[in-house]
Amino acid sequence: MSEQSTIVLFSGELDKAIAAFIIANGAAAYDHEVTIFFTFWGLNALRKDEVIQTNKSFLEKAFGWMMPRGANKLGLSKMNFGGLGPQMIKHVMKKHNALSLPQLIELAKEQGVKLVACTMTMDLLGLKQEELMDGIEYAGVAAYLGDASNGKVNLFI
Amino acid sequence: MSEQSTIVLFSGELDKAIAAFIIANGAAAYDHEVTIFFTFWGLNALRKDEVIQTNKSFLEKAFGWMMPRGANKLGLSKMNFGGLGPQMIKHVMKKHNALSLPQLIELAKEQGVKLVACTMTMDLLGLKQEELMDGIEYAGVAAYLGDASNGKVNLFI
Amino acid sequence: MSEQSTIVLFSGELDKAIAAFIIANGAAAYDHEVTIFFTFWGLNALRKDEVIQTNKSFLEKAFGWMMPRGANKLGLSKMNFGGLGPQMIKHVMKKHNALSLPQLIELAKEQGVKLVACTMTMDLLGLKQEELMDGIEYAGVAAYLGDASNGKVNLFI
Repeated sequence: MSEQSTIVLFSGELDKAIAAFIIANGAAAYDHEVTIFFTFWGLNALRKDEVIQTNKSFLEKAFGWMMPRGANKLGLSKMNFGGLGPQMIKHVMKKHNALSLPQLIELAKEQGVKLVACTMTMDLLGLKQEELMDGIEYAGVAAYLGDASNGKVNLFI
Repeated sequence: MSEQSTIVLFSGELDKAIAAFIIANGAAAYDHEVTIFFTFWGLNALRKDEVIQTNKSFLEKAFGWMMPRGANKLGLSKMNFGGLGPQMIKHVMKKHNALSLPQLIELAKEQGVKLVACTMTMDLLGLKQEELMDGIEYAGVAAYLGDASNGKVNLFI
Repeated sequence: MSEQSTIVLFSGELDKAIAAFIIANGAAAYDHEVTIFFTFWGLNALRKDEVIQTNKSFLEKAFGWMMPRGANKLGLSKMNFGGLGPQMIKHVMKKHNALSLPQLIELAKEQGVKLVACTMTMDLLGLKQEELMDGIEYAGVAAYLGDASNGKVNLFI
């Protein structure tokens, strides 16, 4: 059986999401079974960038409106400078032919990395399945622990 | 022997503390031995909410005054909005019948999760045992490493 | 064979770097093989504090100018107060005879902790080897995963 690696992506920042996917894609390239479990602000990396019509309470709408819509809209954990920082990072990544976050996510899917959205947080923040990208799974903390218990590389990002 | 899981709770934010306790309670429900090691700002989740009279230096008093007193006073890592964010999260958690952080802490104790306050950071920040909640243990990094070496799910939050 | 422990130091804050080195030095004292893999803002802890003449693009110069030069210049993740917080922490650490971050780094080197700078992030941020301290290694995510797969204590800080 191949080795299992799991990452909890809790943070909603571009730099942390990039780090998570670089590690995940690297581990998948070495034939690890890899799971990324998206919880809290990490779920924002999975959001579609268009507005999806859904039936929400006022507070759910407020969360949906305040949180970034998808991998292209995330800020940086440091030196965000009101959105200039992410543009700088994207610029240098392009210049160095590094994969962008949306490309890293696509690669992860192609390599069979399991992308799991935390259903409990989705409930709390009022995120609906139709607002998140296709090709992902939905589960709770029990499923995460099941995967994590089989692996040695378990990170919380 | 049952499996060991350890979490270092370094961060002092409500959302990260909730994530730590949800994972810890989940692992305990699956019969893992679970240790949460509270260090740096994570210690604030263990503080009693009343002011405790202690003998402190000026700087220790300053730290004590600036840091939040307990699980009900923590802010969010994102969208804190001067304290409005935590109220929004608490509101939706209550609406969804999710356990609050104080309830998650109580559940962890009932399930035998070992809550350990890092004595080195307590010294640095001037936190005294009488300022922290009852039913916790006190130890240093060596004790943490002893537990962590026995487990596979080791997270730093 | 002795046990392997790895830490990814992604964050560039003083308090998180101190936590990483205290855990690393503790594990090394218990005869673990320890690797700290410095990526993104974590690389700043390895920078020399003087200005090094290098051949850089404008954006690389901008990153170099904005990011802190070395272990003595890092801020705090909480209560930074425009640089006052780090001085408070350094003051109480000195008062308690705790090792400073530069001393913790020296101790780690003496104990054989492997300090590895992430070459991919160095490329992106335009950091050159001559800007980083001596006695460290240079590698990518594959080398990190090789070490991490051999250990159980794998943290992302």
